[in-house]
Amino acid sequence: MAACGRTGLWLIGARGSVATTAITGLLALRAGVVPPTGCVSAGPRFAELGLPDWDELVVGGHDIVSTPLDKRAEPLTEAGVIPHRVLDAVRGQLADVDAEVCAGYHPATHDGSQADAAARLGADIRAFARRHDLARVVVLNVSSTEPVFPELPEHRSLRSLEAAMAVPGRTVLPPSSVAVHAALYAGCPYVDFTPSTGIRLPALAELAERQGLPYAGSDGKTGETLVRSALAPMFAARALRVRSWAGTNLLGGGDGQTLADAEHAGSKLESKGRGLATLLGGEVTAPLHIDNVPDLGEQKVAWDHVSFEGFLGARMSLQFTWTGLDSALAAPLVLDLARLTAAAHAAGQRGPLGAFAFFFKDPVGSTEHRLAEQAAALHAWAADLRERQ
Amino acid sequence: MAACGRTGLWLIGARGSVATTAITGLLALRAGVVPPTGCVSAGPRFAELGLPDWDELVVGGHDIVSTPLDKRAEPLTEAGVIPHRVLDAVRGQLADVDAEVCAGYHPATHDGSQADAAARLGADIRAFARRHDLARVVVLNVSSTEPVFPELPEHRSLRSLEAAMAVPGRTVLPPSSVAVHAALYAGCPYVDFTPSTGIRLPALAELAERQGLPYAGSDGKTGETLVRSALAPMFAARALRVRSWAGTNLLGGGDGQTLADAEHAGSKLESKGRGLATLLGGEVTAPLHIDNVPDLGEQKVAWDHVSFEGFLGARMSLQFTWTGLDSALAAPLVLDLARLTAAAHAAGQRGPLGAFAFFFKDPVGSTEHRLAEQAAALHAWAADLRERQ
Amino acid sequence: MAACGRTGLWLIGARGSVATTAITGLLALRAGVVPPTGCVSAGPRFAELGLPDWDELVVGGHDIVSTPLDKRAEPLTEAGVIPHRVLDAVRGQLADVDAEVCAGYHPATHDGSQADAAARLGADIRAFARRHDLARVVVLNVSSTEPVFPELPEHRSLRSLEAAMAVPGRTVLPPSSVAVHAALYAGCPYVDFTPSTGIRLPALAELAERQGLPYAGSDGKTGETLVRSALAPMFAARALRVRSWAGTNLLGGGDGQTLADAEHAGSKLESKGRGLATLLGGEVTAPLHIDNVPDLGEQKVAWDHVSFEGFLGARMSLQFTWTGLDSALAAPLVLDLARLTAAAHAAGQRGPLGAFAFFFKDPVGSTEHRLAEQAAALHAWAADLRERQ
Amino acid sequence: MAACGRTGLWLIGARGSVATTAITGLLALRAGVVPPTGCVSAGPRFAELGLPDWDELVVGGHDIVSTPLDKRAEPLTEAGVIPHRVLDAVRGQLADVDAEVCAGYHPATHDGSQADAAARLGADIRAFARRHDLARVVVLNVSSTEPVFPELPEHRSLRSLEAAMAVPGRTVLPPSSVAVHAALYAGCPYVDFTPSTGIRLPALAELAERQGLPYAGSDGKTGETLVRSALAPMFAARALRVRSWAGTNLLGGGDGQTLADAEHAGSKLESKGRGLATLLGGEVTAPLHIDNVPDLGEQKVAWDHVSFEGFLGARMSLQFTWTGLDSALAAPLVLDLARLTAAAHAAGQRGPLGAFAFFFKDPVGSTEHRLAEQAAALHAWAADLRERQ
Repeated sequence: MAACGRTGLWLIGARGSVATTAITGLLALRAGVVPPTGCVSAGPRFAELGLPDWDELVVGGHDIVSTPLDKRAEPLTEAGVIPHRVLDAVRGQLADVDAEVCAGYHPATHDGSQADAAARLGADIRAFARRHDLARVVVLNVSSTEPVFPELPEHRSLRSLEAAMAVPGRTVLPPSSVAVHAALYAGCPYVDFTPSTGIRLPALAELAERQGLPYAGSDGKTGETLVRSALAPMFAARALRVRSWAGTNLLGGGDGQTLADAEHAGSKLESKGRGLATLLGGEVTAPLHIDNVPDLGEQKVAWDHVSFEGFLGARMSLQFTWTGLDSALAAPLVLDLARLTAAAHAAGQRGPLGAFAFFFKDPVGSTEHRLAEQAAALHAWAADLRERQ
Repeated sequence: MAACGRTGLWLIGARGSVATTAITGLLALRAGVVPPTGCVSAGPRFAELGLPDWDELVVGGHDIVSTPLDKRAEPLTEAGVIPHRVLDAVRGQLADVDAEVCAGYHPATHDGSQADAAARLGADIRAFARRHDLARVVVLNVSSTEPVFPELPEHRSLRSLEAAMAVPGRTVLPPSSVAVHAALYAGCPYVDFTPSTGIRLPALAELAERQGLPYAGSDGKTGETLVRSALAPMFAARALRVRSWAGTNLLGGGDGQTLADAEHAGSKLESKGRGLATLLGGEVTAPLHIDNVPDLGEQKVAWDHVSFEGFLGARMSLQFTWTGLDSALAAPLVLDLARLTAAAHAAGQRGPLGAFAFFFKDPVGSTEHRLAEQAAALHAWAADLRERQ
Repeated sequence: MAACGRTGLWLIGARGSVATTAITGLLALRAGVVPPTGCVSAGPRFAELGLPDWDELVVGGHDIVSTPLDKRAEPLTEAGVIPHRVLDAVRGQLADVDAEVCAGYHPATHDGSQADAAARLGADIRAFARRHDLARVVVLNVSSTEPVFPELPEHRSLRSLEAAMAVPGRTVLPPSSVAVHAALYAGCPYVDFTPSTGIRLPALAELAERQGLPYAGSDGKTGETLVRSALAPMFAARALRVRSWAGTNLLGGGDGQTLADAEHAGSKLESKGRGLATLLGGEVTAPLHIDNVPDLGEQKVAWDHVSFEGFLGARMSLQFTWTGLDSALAAPLVLDLARLTAAAHAAGQRGPLGAFAFFFKDPVGSTEHRLAEQAAALHAWAADLRERQ
Repeated sequence: MAACGRTGLWLIGARGSVATTAITGLLALRAGVVPPTGCVSAGPRFAELGLPDWDELVVGGHDIVSTPLDKRAEPLTEAGVIPHRVLDAVRGQLADVDAEVCAGYHPATHDGSQADAAARLGADIRAFARRHDLARVVVLNVSSTEPVFPELPEHRSLRSLEAAMAVPGRTVLPPSSVAVHAALYAGCPYVDFTPSTGIRLPALAELAERQGLPYAGSDGKTGETLVRSALAPMFAARALRVRSWAGTNLLGGGDGQTLADAEHAGSKLESKGRGLATLLGGEVTAPLHIDNVPDLGEQKVAWDHVSFEGFLGARMSLQFTWTGLDSALAAPLVLDLARLTAAAHAAGQRGPLGAFAFFFKDPVGSTEHRLAEQAAALHAWAADLRERQ
């Protein structure tokens, strides 16, 4: 097979915590100062697939924030996400990457139509690809979770969508979907690491189809849902009846703030809930909370309490507490997805990449939520790709 | 295929908590007063395999205790394992089963050779099979965990073992292995639900081979280890580095008492430890304790603390608390194993049933400890069996 | 001093879970079939205070539910709150108590004015006292938590309140406060075990004052808040800075249902929150949830996560999980409060009984929330009472 | 009253984690770069007692380790105990303190008698006092926990002890007790922050008495036992019957290593156990483990599971997980004890300081283990001291 070659990774939200950690980590991996812990694609099952090496990945992106990456990295060292010595080792290169970050789109600061906005975003990506002589660019959304955006009739077909986008001042798409439109037009495969609307509109799926591009998403599975997707199948496999599964999430950082807003939490909670019902084969009482606890910083604490019934109706329970650093969990998956999506694109795959469900809370192109089965599907995808080469 | 037909389930330790719960539950299932919650073999994947129905399973057994089953069941109602209404519904039939329980073997109360002892045990089983006109009898050990028994040179071959067994007063085997010898001579497939020595001696494997019998084991996976086998693969799949995995088990009941004795704990701890190292792909710091806490009764509380490292060395942790009723968790698996082993025997399978690893902490015939993979192997076994019929 | 003599305990909500457990327990204590575990007033510090003995307490009450007490007790045996043998021992006497339960007041089923309603309730209590020749009757509210009732100008003085109460069809008071009005007019000391409005209106405090009656409340401290009141002072005493204290409560039973309604939760959450801020000497981030999880039945599971800072800003945490049976925790305190309030009344005490803060989440007559200090205040009250005799 | 004036703090184990954190913190407090979080003596109840100010405390000590303090502090920054900016702010002064640390005593490296050893240690302390013109020197042991030392008849009186100490090559005392002998001869009050033997020998108590010196100890209460001493009284106050209280401690760092050795654990476990039985008013099943988990570094994780019984025998449980940084918890108490013991000495107090039980797992001069009562006793001591001035 042909190797992917020099590959662009274009991050929507390129100066957020996840992006900053991913970029810093990529530079550190390139410099050989850290092992690839947490990077699934660094394992032996993904060898010889022609994935872009660490030094073949070139990063750029959009962000509406202008604080440079090295400043963004500093609080992450205090938070235990980035070791001081790692930041010291890559500080110079962080500035280079920061120079590749362009101003993002936000309706509040944009005059003109959303078509204009998408065109401008697309031009940024194309210029980046030319500047670095890239074989392909994977566009990946790690920006803050958006409030739920209403369904509109214009979303149903590409034609009606683009007509509406052309109207100056009209906001027919949330920013995440404007970015998708730009990416697809620019010929880039797309990955959604957030629960925002993104590509999940018929009109945009139509565009991806027309462009023959693969895409993956959505909402990176990094904490409570990851554990649930490993544990819930245990109950099913053992014919134990889960009676309730309650969850509480405490998070600080930007995400805590964003999700404290009930509207925002809506989209996240929904994305978490879908999986649980599927995993357990039916609805159970499953109250779920996300609380903003600023002092936790980058830390995310999740407590789940599962009440279940066994033989002769015996009542039992399982509870777990997960104490994770969200950016540290998400960042290596961002690099994995960039590499794997590049390989899918290079192999001519198109449409939703269901084999990547392993990475997501709410996978597109797959109804599988069980972690072990998702891992098996990903490994099968890799084995299949290797064989074809 | 041919259905299994009337099948005997011969329990070593037939008046223990697990056996009492399994028997009471079987009678309740037969009476239709409870659903088969916790019974894996009642699921659709195991339909049409010709497994013995609830009313085709006939139970007998050995025990060194003489308290009748209905008396043994009473504390289990207080403990939340058996509902009062269930005991009331099956009390009469419990007495019938109790009449099929013969005196077990214990070196302290036995005169003569172990060969005599095994012969007597075997005769009990054969008489039971004749009395009930059974197509086959599965012998299954649910007696208390034995202290670790020393390895002896006589264990290396059947010939040397039987020579030693013939010497009056000589104790060359622990009781669990005497029971295995008896079972195999009586032509019965054998299942070990405990961590005791049982069939795990070369001489006895040789006997099973000679007799062409299948066997399964060992040490039913019902609590902490079950959860570990679901969770540990998550860390491996995500390339997260587990740095330590500490566990504490609090248990009352007979098991708590037995395992408080350090010697006994030895065999249980070893059996738990083997799995974790395999699951994580190497040794980690993994202190493990089993404490006898009599007030917990049938309840078993396990707390595990996992410390792991992610991207850029980030430190994170997962802890869980499992509050289970051990007999309620074990009993349906006992019924599953009786049915599935009967089907394996009916299909002419022989030797260690590695496909049953799903049920065990320390599986014979398999090195797979990951729960999802074990479930898949069991399902494949069932599908294969169905196809052959 | 004079002993309290035959004392009435008049329960508002006499057929609820807490009342049913308290009544069953009282009968069991009288019969000598259980020890007084959980009864604070049975300890040596409360001896020789002339408290009514178990057989000097006579129980009656109001309820809007008509299911008799023995039927109400049955699900509580399944739930692990009342042992079967205890219910069997007292079933007959439960019916006797049930005969003393009169129809409670509810605006939806009442024609006429609230003054009429209060008069009718008061007449029930007086008839009960005469019928049993009681020295005094303690009225105690254990009915379901009410939705928050709006503050009205009529609540400011007894005169304006009673004018409004006299208007037919006017609902100027929630049911809990109508009951208080009735109790005080009937010359009865009053205890509020719920977070409902009850006596906490200026007009009703004025009435208590005029009648010279003592009263205590409110909202029995039985679970999460109890633990908080023991733990929070630890942080203060050690000069550790609590940064956040998050709590999640999972509850089934009637309470779970009631509190699922956001309006209802309002009053409970507020009552819990007040204490924490006081205990920690200032506001902290303290998200708190109450979820209805019906399968938990009488069980209440609370998880608290405390994030705190020590020397040089070091970040640490404490989390706890409480698994309690709410009715089992509340019931003995109901008996304690009946006995202690009777003694306060016999000793001529009047107004809010701040020394009883030990029992409450939101104590009247005290700003002390620290459990050890509350215990000390209660013990001092008892010692003082003993000395005066 | 007279202020304490310039006060020496002489640390046995001056280069250990606790000492390094205490010294670094003292320098940071003096520089005003951190608030005194965790320092009990910085609160208003301890104002106007003439306690030495941060800049009146002069630190020296003994250690058998020669790694200088600034090197010792570095891993503590990685561990989250000392912030980088704090170490940077005080690095220079750390070297000054390090210059005051003399070689400690260890039997394996010492020729001659223990009397000689004690004389040499005492001379070091006296020289330090003269060099810095100190009003008094508090000697405080924060060295590693010693193995249990056997009781010897020579320990019964000072005369017999000193006779034995004079014999060259004879090891009649553990190092901690040799240090006590030196301290008391040098006229210094003594504090034991470890569970080692230290002053707890009749002969050494006799010496303290003869010298008219106060002393305090032993074994700083910083984690699991601290929480227990806040929680256990809750059960007693509420007449709830604790049935079992199981504990598991996971610790890395030097302490983890030391305590992994069963002999060492012996002395720590005993010291923890004594308190619990006293707190609960009798023996309960209370298995307790201390595990060495090196990857946890300075972190200490303790899990406790309390099973208790309430009204009518209802079974309930409380469990907690404490995640602390041991050195961060101990260090401010070391400074507190130095200041408070200096004040006790200045006020002419002698013998065991029972009022300081608040700080210790196994208090000398007090049988009080309840935290709130210990806090009250300490506050009373302070109030009394203030009044006398």
